[in-house]
Amino acid sequence: MVKVGIIGAGRIGKLHITSICTRVRNGVIKTVADPFMNEETAAWAESMGVQHTTTDYKEILNDPEIDAVLICSSTDTHSSISVEAINAGKHVFCEKPIDHDLAKIKEVVKALEGKDLKYMVGFNRRFDTHHAAVRQAIVDGKIGNMELVKISSRDPEPPSIEYVKGSGGIFMDMMIHDFDMVRFLTGADVEEVYTISNVLVDPAIGEAGDVDTAIVSLKMSNGALAVIDNSRRSVYGYDQRLEVFGSKGMVQDQNVGANNTIISNENGVTTEKPVNFFLERYLDAYAKEITSFIDCIENNTPAPMDVWDGLKPVMIAQAATISSKEGRPVKMSEIKF
Amino acid sequence: MVKVGIIGAGRIGKLHITSICTRVRNGVIKTVADPFMNEETAAWAESMGVQHTTTDYKEILNDPEIDAVLICSSTDTHSSISVEAINAGKHVFCEKPIDHDLAKIKEVVKALEGKDLKYMVGFNRRFDTHHAAVRQAIVDGKIGNMELVKISSRDPEPPSIEYVKGSGGIFMDMMIHDFDMVRFLTGADVEEVYTISNVLVDPAIGEAGDVDTAIVSLKMSNGALAVIDNSRRSVYGYDQRLEVFGSKGMVQDQNVGANNTIISNENGVTTEKPVNFFLERYLDAYAKEITSFIDCIENNTPAPMDVWDGLKPVMIAQAATISSKEGRPVKMSEIKF
Amino acid sequence: MVKVGIIGAGRIGKLHITSICTRVRNGVIKTVADPFMNEETAAWAESMGVQHTTTDYKEILNDPEIDAVLICSSTDTHSSISVEAINAGKHVFCEKPIDHDLAKIKEVVKALEGKDLKYMVGFNRRFDTHHAAVRQAIVDGKIGNMELVKISSRDPEPPSIEYVKGSGGIFMDMMIHDFDMVRFLTGADVEEVYTISNVLVDPAIGEAGDVDTAIVSLKMSNGALAVIDNSRRSVYGYDQRLEVFGSKGMVQDQNVGANNTIISNENGVTTEKPVNFFLERYLDAYAKEITSFIDCIENNTPAPMDVWDGLKPVMIAQAATISSKEGRPVKMSEIKF
Amino acid sequence: MVKVGIIGAGRIGKLHITSICTRVRNGVIKTVADPFMNEETAAWAESMGVQHTTTDYKEILNDPEIDAVLICSSTDTHSSISVEAINAGKHVFCEKPIDHDLAKIKEVVKALEGKDLKYMVGFNRRFDTHHAAVRQAIVDGKIGNMELVKISSRDPEPPSIEYVKGSGGIFMDMMIHDFDMVRFLTGADVEEVYTISNVLVDPAIGEAGDVDTAIVSLKMSNGALAVIDNSRRSVYGYDQRLEVFGSKGMVQDQNVGANNTIISNENGVTTEKPVNFFLERYLDAYAKEITSFIDCIENNTPAPMDVWDGLKPVMIAQAATISSKEGRPVKMSEIKF
Repeated sequence: MVKVGIIGAGRIGKLHITSICTRVRNGVIKTVADPFMNEETAAWAESMGVQHTTTDYKEILNDPEIDAVLICSSTDTHSSISVEAINAGKHVFCEKPIDHDLAKIKEVVKALEGKDLKYMVGFNRRFDTHHAAVRQAIVDGKIGNMELVKISSRDPEPPSIEYVKGSGGIFMDMMIHDFDMVRFLTGADVEEVYTISNVLVDPAIGEAGDVDTAIVSLKMSNGALAVIDNSRRSVYGYDQRLEVFGSKGMVQDQNVGANNTIISNENGVTTEKPVNFFLERYLDAYAKEITSFIDCIENNTPAPMDVWDGLKPVMIAQAATISSKEGRPVKMSEIKF
Repeated sequence: MVKVGIIGAGRIGKLHITSICTRVRNGVIKTVADPFMNEETAAWAESMGVQHTTTDYKEILNDPEIDAVLICSSTDTHSSISVEAINAGKHVFCEKPIDHDLAKIKEVVKALEGKDLKYMVGFNRRFDTHHAAVRQAIVDGKIGNMELVKISSRDPEPPSIEYVKGSGGIFMDMMIHDFDMVRFLTGADVEEVYTISNVLVDPAIGEAGDVDTAIVSLKMSNGALAVIDNSRRSVYGYDQRLEVFGSKGMVQDQNVGANNTIISNENGVTTEKPVNFFLERYLDAYAKEITSFIDCIENNTPAPMDVWDGLKPVMIAQAATISSKEGRPVKMSEIKF
Repeated sequence: MVKVGIIGAGRIGKLHITSICTRVRNGVIKTVADPFMNEETAAWAESMGVQHTTTDYKEILNDPEIDAVLICSSTDTHSSISVEAINAGKHVFCEKPIDHDLAKIKEVVKALEGKDLKYMVGFNRRFDTHHAAVRQAIVDGKIGNMELVKISSRDPEPPSIEYVKGSGGIFMDMMIHDFDMVRFLTGADVEEVYTISNVLVDPAIGEAGDVDTAIVSLKMSNGALAVIDNSRRSVYGYDQRLEVFGSKGMVQDQNVGANNTIISNENGVTTEKPVNFFLERYLDAYAKEITSFIDCIENNTPAPMDVWDGLKPVMIAQAATISSKEGRPVKMSEIKF
Repeated sequence: MVKVGIIGAGRIGKLHITSICTRVRNGVIKTVADPFMNEETAAWAESMGVQHTTTDYKEILNDPEIDAVLICSSTDTHSSISVEAINAGKHVFCEKPIDHDLAKIKEVVKALEGKDLKYMVGFNRRFDTHHAAVRQAIVDGKIGNMELVKISSRDPEPPSIEYVKGSGGIFMDMMIHDFDMVRFLTGADVEEVYTISNVLVDPAIGEAGDVDTAIVSLKMSNGALAVIDNSRRSVYGYDQRLEVFGSKGMVQDQNVGANNTIISNENGVTTEKPVNFFLERYLDAYAKEITSFIDCIENNTPAPMDVWDGLKPVMIAQAATISSKEGRPVKMSEIKF
């Protein structure tokens, strides 16, 4: 039984609490820490089976019974708490991104050196049934050599301008998931990125220094060519599609609707639009992600992702941002770590 | 070059004229006869390449140069003109049905005895690309032994009450195509039919002594079970679907839309509804049907259908009509020929 | 908090235990009884959060703290335990069918008279997301007046011959779900059934006095026509499809695959076949079913189904069986209760 | 009745002859010229209804009865024959591309100045039912403001190396259709292109100085972002898909299979792969294209495309080729005309 502490009981922290308490047979939550822990949250956590709640995350780090920590706090604390947790000998699951600043990530990498600890970053989409099946088809040789990869990610609606301002920009905040996905699908690294982008959804996003619509083309280290498109607004719901084309065929996945009914009437033949956002779309993926983390600790097997998998998408996001601003292709070798 | 005469220049006659003049390389139309032949129709026919028009179909029968006759006149004349044409030594393509009266069909059968003539009835759906591919999958063994057959045919809207009154009823007028289809798909004969039916679309259809909605279940001579449903009104267009299930799998076909676009918006994900009626849906099938008739004459190969294929659906329609009226299963052996 | 006792800890009992312990926030299992309760099962139940296990179901009935009983024991005990539980003042959730014998069901009906207890029968498919959405579309008026209903249910492979012998036949064992579904979809009752059936999958099923392939057509009390087809073997997986056609359109649902990938290669464009059997296909529906039962107790609202909904499909199955054996339509008025 | 002369009786010339003779009611072919005209071709043309054949295309240009010329000769003669035909006062339909050399196209533009002649270039895909329906949905406002455009074109197999060497490269030979399509869909011009490309299909293509796999991202003059991918080999057939995303929704089209059957078996649920190449896929589009050309002459309405529509894709192809070779974004303003 792996004993877990959870740092941060916001939306994503609560999601992981629910997953562990209801779906993970080999993990138990000893402590949940949140600086804003209140009675309601504490009562809810206890009703789920959490043993203890606190406002001080150091209680978790100092507890020798706790094997593993989930860092679900605000982004700016991810790297420093990671370092602390590693130094306290804990396995770490850290929500994405580790940090926007490579120097901070470097500290985490250094802290991990020589330690036999798992460090996994929360790129939840890898654990989605459909996306994982796309990867599996590739691994199984069903499409031969990879040649073209296409990823679409479009959010149902833009976040608030306040959120945009602190988000690190569309490439760091949103497309980072797709940068992880292109690495996951291809098993290869990015060598060069080129971005075209625009402000088409809301001028206020442009005024905040960001863009809301972008296409990034990528040269991969295995010779494959890839392209990712993002939009901050998709009126038909949360659009999440993959397509990988190779010498022996193509594998794609489809959006997921609330149900699979088909209604035929005078207006046409209509199926449900995609479910509206990531908590619905990826609920099951989040649970599989945490299960996978607990399992690799229990069985002492390699984690499905490591700190480098957490780092690389941040570097690609930086390159894509530079390309967007400077209007030129950016080689990954320009981004120094 | 097969020389053809066409008797009847109404909607379906014109369709066959167009097919032969534009798509059939080995057939030429010498004469088109229609009692109501007018200048406009004659001019149109000549512009298509027809050599001669007349009001008297006997000109066609008496013309020793003409090899084959297409009977596209009103249903009540199909059988008598068939007999005349056969006796004149012509190959015959007759629009469906040969007649509602089995005695009249018997005269056609007798006329054909001992003659080396093709006699083909216009069950155009057999020549539809999609339906033919379903049959081909069965022939190719892709579904193993046939076990269940399901056919849906729903017209976009009911015909006029005048038409209904003279139509012979839904089973003779509309479901007759599906009775042919179930024979085509299975390569077997019907042994028993049972009908449930109702007047759900328009009470006037009931007052005319007919029904507008029906499900007929059929026991086939090869042991397969089949079911056909018909409705006189489908607001989403002309619904034409087949499903055949067997020991090794299932083959189905789908409706055909005007185009294959998909529109995703706030209301869902929408494709085009089926094309609206048989002239659009089966335009290509009509041309293939006539091509097939001309080819079998030129090459002296068996026609894809013969007079018995024209007869059997009429008998099944009679059984289904009795079942509908009497509320009991009707064995095909009850229908005497 | 509704306190529950579970009688029977076989496959379906365990499924409900898991659902309640992990997904039902307002229900708790006090006791699980099974005559074959062993240490392994008891340990598993306790690890799930069950408070107590026993071999004697009377402990549950006699426990004044327990509000509701789930009867998951063998079919032949359903009705007698139902009566006992009702008499002990418990709300009852009973797995389907209540009994094959109408007299036994009558005893349950009588026991319920004058008591303010919920009695719900486990027709799980009503709670499937997709099937429920079909019903909702009808309720919402999206297809206008119902005219035609088509239901396909095909099992991946036949059960053992031993099972077949004790199953009550395909209509009582398998199609009973579809008889419930046609009532659920239409909100109407069946007035007449007619069965065509055959032994096409395995002669041993015929030797056991049963059939393995059947089409049943049904006249509904609201005038709609319905047809159900069943097969004991579908090589492509568990086939579960609904289609309801009406004056304003059609609603259908589709099978559910293990994932939604599409692979295009030299052989065609291929998606996953349906998931293999009911535990996978309806896992979520089982949880929603139990949630719904607990909720209606907690809120004292009407259960979504009552004892009559448990009774009627048994009566329809009896009629369909008679029709299959006697080759004639059977009116529901012939089946006396 | 528009009188037409056809210059070039190769594959595409024959296709247009067939279209005009069988499907175009208001056009007639007076003369077909081909330097390699032989008896077989002449006999075939006459059997189709062509009045005259010759080896000398000047017969067509000098014939005052001929209104319009179709230039279906080899690419290197397109521009010079265009100029001759224009100077002879003929309307011109020219197969794509006008030329690879902008100076040659300039001569055509100059020849047209001040003349009231139609000049249409054969970008057949605009006339495909499905692609045209995508454009129509945009025009009808169904997706609001255009934001993202994605086009996939993948050929079933690479052409011969000899063909590759003379083709002008993948951008001029193959992607030129997509450059036309992105202009057609958006109604806007390209402002900048950036190419990533590779040799993944056949090293011999690389040795010939070309690439076989490419992704081109494009900034459009209306602010939309676009991306086109091409591959010279798609094992599942001729892949031709469009996707346009906007503020109110998305419109896509799908590949076209030989038929629309669905086979479900142990391997999955399989539909037909796309039809194998352009003559099958676009047969109907070619006929609509020619019909459209003849119609605009007869009615003296603007042609659906003009010489600038023939020029622009050549310029974009040049920019994409430069980008591919130099590894940098190329602005369209760099390509001087």
